[in-house]
Amino acid sequence: MTDLWLPSLKTDTPQAGFELAVKLSRMGVKLTQPSDQVRSQLRAAYEQDSAQLITASHVIAVHFQTVAAANNWWR
Amino acid sequence: MTDLWLPSLKTDTPQAGFELAVKLSRMGVKLTQPSDQVRSQLRAAYEQDSAQLITASHVIAVHFQTVAAANNWWR
Amino acid sequence: MTDLWLPSLKTDTPQAGFELAVKLSRMGVKLTQPSDQVRSQLRAAYEQDSAQLITASHVIAVHFQTVAAANNWWR
Amino acid sequence: MTDLWLPSLKTDTPQAGFELAVKLSRMGVKLTQPSDQVRSQLRAAYEQDSAQLITASHVIAVHFQTVAAANNWWR
Amino acid sequence: MTDLWLPSLKTDTPQAGFELAVKLSRMGVKLTQPSDQVRSQLRAAYEQDSAQLITASHVIAVHFQTVAAANNWWR
Amino acid sequence: MTDLWLPSLKTDTPQAGFELAVKLSRMGVKLTQPSDQVRSQLRAAYEQDSAQLITASHVIAVHFQTVAAANNWWR
Repeated sequence: MTDLWLPSLKTDTPQAGFELAVKLSRMGVKLTQPSDQVRSQLRAAYEQDSAQLITASHVIAVHFQTVAAANNWWR
Repeated sequence: MTDLWLPSLKTDTPQAGFELAVKLSRMGVKLTQPSDQVRSQLRAAYEQDSAQLITASHVIAVHFQTVAAANNWWR
Repeated sequence: MTDLWLPSLKTDTPQAGFELAVKLSRMGVKLTQPSDQVRSQLRAAYEQDSAQLITASHVIAVHFQTVAAANNWWR
Repeated sequence: MTDLWLPSLKTDTPQAGFELAVKLSRMGVKLTQPSDQVRSQLRAAYEQDSAQLITASHVIAVHFQTVAAANNWWR
Repeated sequence: MTDLWLPSLKTDTPQAGFELAVKLSRMGVKLTQPSDQVRSQLRAAYEQDSAQLITASHVIAVHFQTVAAANNWWR
Repeated sequence: MTDLWLPSLKTDTPQAGFELAVKLSRMGVKLTQPSDQVRSQLRAAYEQDSAQLITASHVIAVHFQTVAAANNWWR
């Protein structure tokens, strides 16, 4: 993966910061399971599983802490 | 999702901050599973499952840390 | 829920702060499952389940971080 | 519970801080399941379950963050 | 393990910091299960398990908080 | 346990800090299950279980946050 996908943690708005947190969560999965095909199959399953959706939301929450701190909480 | 749903992390009170943390938790799920219908079906199940309710409360707790810091703990 | 239940994160003592963390954990569950009856049924089950008790303790720990920071660790 | 069990987050040493983190973890369980008898029965089971022991260690880690910060990391 | 594998938490870019977080997550597993052969067998299983992939992403998120703070969020 | 096992959170290098985080994770388990024999039996099982290895790595990550902060991130 030589693409530049994370140039900065700065975002213009809290909402853009939340979307970055979602992206970081997905990149954590992608760097562990690089196959698009396998991830796509798994996605079909976990999107129907509330426990996994809550866990995915948890990971987003952890990354949102980081992004919010990086942006001084958009104060 | 082009709506503005997170204009700021500032809230007037700790309680409003807690409610924002609940909203952020739900948005983490919604951005992972955008279908209102699927989320509604899953909700019926997990609302009866104490382990998932505790996990949902955990995600709220993580977001509440972020919101509280953003508001300088409403000191 | 229009009650005022969280007027402040300030507490006089660390122990009162811990009790507030317990309350915040429960409110996270309550705002996800508002029915007193359902929560009461679920409580009977999870109070006998050590894994869920440890998870509940985990949520308390996360909220206690927030409350302790809000009180400057009662230094 | 009207006992004073948490007078302060200050400890003389990091090791005493770790022991306080263990205590806080247990108090999180105790305040959720106050029956000594039930907790004692559950303890017999989870002490033989590695997944639950790791989770208990996780809760201790979260509290240790709080205690360490309260003590300015014993610098 | 006498190799030097973690000379610094500083990275030039956020993306390099994320990659370091991935490495730290893996080292946490490796120091617990040092056998390359066992880890390789386990990897084949968990790479197909969405719940475990999300959990792996969670660990990366926690380490990314640390790395980001170490780099002053690359501000 | 009257041994001195945690004299300080200071380490000379990030890598030594990571090793201290591993130690803290294990001490969290040991203080919950003091029997060397039981822990040794459990270890044989969880070392073959990827989900538990990832969870162990998670606990290390939380402690590494604490140790890194205590060392001002070795800046």
